[in-house]
Amino acid sequence: MGRASKREEIAQAALRQFHARGFNATGINDITTAAGVPKGSFYNHFSSKEEGAVEALSRYAAALRFDMLATPGQPALERLRAHFEHLGRDTLDNGFVRGCLAGNFSAEVADHNEEIRSAVRRGFDQWATLIRRVLTEAQEAGDLDNALDTATAALFILSAWEGALITARAEKSAAPVEAFFRIVFDVVLCKGPS
Amino acid sequence: MGRASKREEIAQAALRQFHARGFNATGINDITTAAGVPKGSFYNHFSSKEEGAVEALSRYAAALRFDMLATPGQPALERLRAHFEHLGRDTLDNGFVRGCLAGNFSAEVADHNEEIRSAVRRGFDQWATLIRRVLTEAQEAGDLDNALDTATAALFILSAWEGALITARAEKSAAPVEAFFRIVFDVVLCKGPS
Repeated sequence: MGRASKREEIAQAALRQFHARGFNATGINDITTAAGVPKGSFYNHFSSKEEGAVEALSRYAAALRFDMLATPGQPALERLRAHFEHLGRDTLDNGFVRGCLAGNFSAEVADHNEEIRSAVRRGFDQWATLIRRVLTEAQEAGDLDNALDTATAALFILSAWEGALITARAEKSAAPVEAFFRIVFDVVLCKGPS
Repeated sequence: MGRASKREEIAQAALRQFHARGFNATGINDITTAAGVPKGSFYNHFSSKEEGAVEALSRYAAALRFDMLATPGQPALERLRAHFEHLGRDTLDNGFVRGCLAGNFSAEVADHNEEIRSAVRRGFDQWATLIRRVLTEAQEAGDLDNALDTATAALFILSAWEGALITARAEKSAAPVEAFFRIVFDVVLCKGPS
């Protein structure tokens, strides 16, 4: 493998290991073994486990299909639903394990590592901005109550999704994800505030 | 210290250490040092770190003030708000660290340890049942739309709270907690479904 492709292999393995095991339970050895490279080679590409985690997070965000929020020709709220249905299928297909890597890092590492916390925060901020844009577009199209504060609603929806994955993992059940869809789409985005 | 009080010291220390550090980052040594007891004494009272974590979780649940959900003489939705305001003050006062121990264990350990997952699940189920009871009471008093499915709404509210703590930790900001109050109390519980 060339240097670039070896870095790629290690980064992909880091993403899979961190997502399956969590930050503290993942050793550099787990990552290099999964990547099929010598243990020492991790440090040829990343200065620390934390830097590997930040790289894993950036690759994870790329798989969240933020592009679905901007599909041309589809009504805004349908795009939002399709985006979360995509994420929901992923957790259902996996038997409710692993959750969201950003949420996992927030729960496990954010209090203890500023580099990782900042990376998670940037990811959440980017996601909330995209959701807010969809909600604003829905308001402009007359599909959503103009009285709903889109910044508040976007942050709430993102948080509620993270929480649904947390409770779905404990319950090993789709009920929290189903409750997310019913309340967010049939109540919050249906009626707006009083 | 007598045997009972030593167990108590160890259990309290386990709760504080697991809540501050997470499951994998907490060693038995961290717990016994914090409790001021010899390392070996942990195993006189708990068969494993996992058993200590389950005991910590049960003590954590006792501090969540579920009793506030049942205060006599206060309207149901006001009790629900007071309960979450109590929890919100705790995270604000602590600078958005630590989150919810049940949510943390779900994110970090639920996929890997059935004993801990079951304990988290029992805690969430108990909490959702109590929230549902409050919502049903609010419906009976005419303070909440009867069309709202209380089981779905209770599970959603619990999940949304867990998620708000997750994003608040990454953002180091009260905004996710404020968004929870605005959307849950001013939208979801104000208007009910369409």
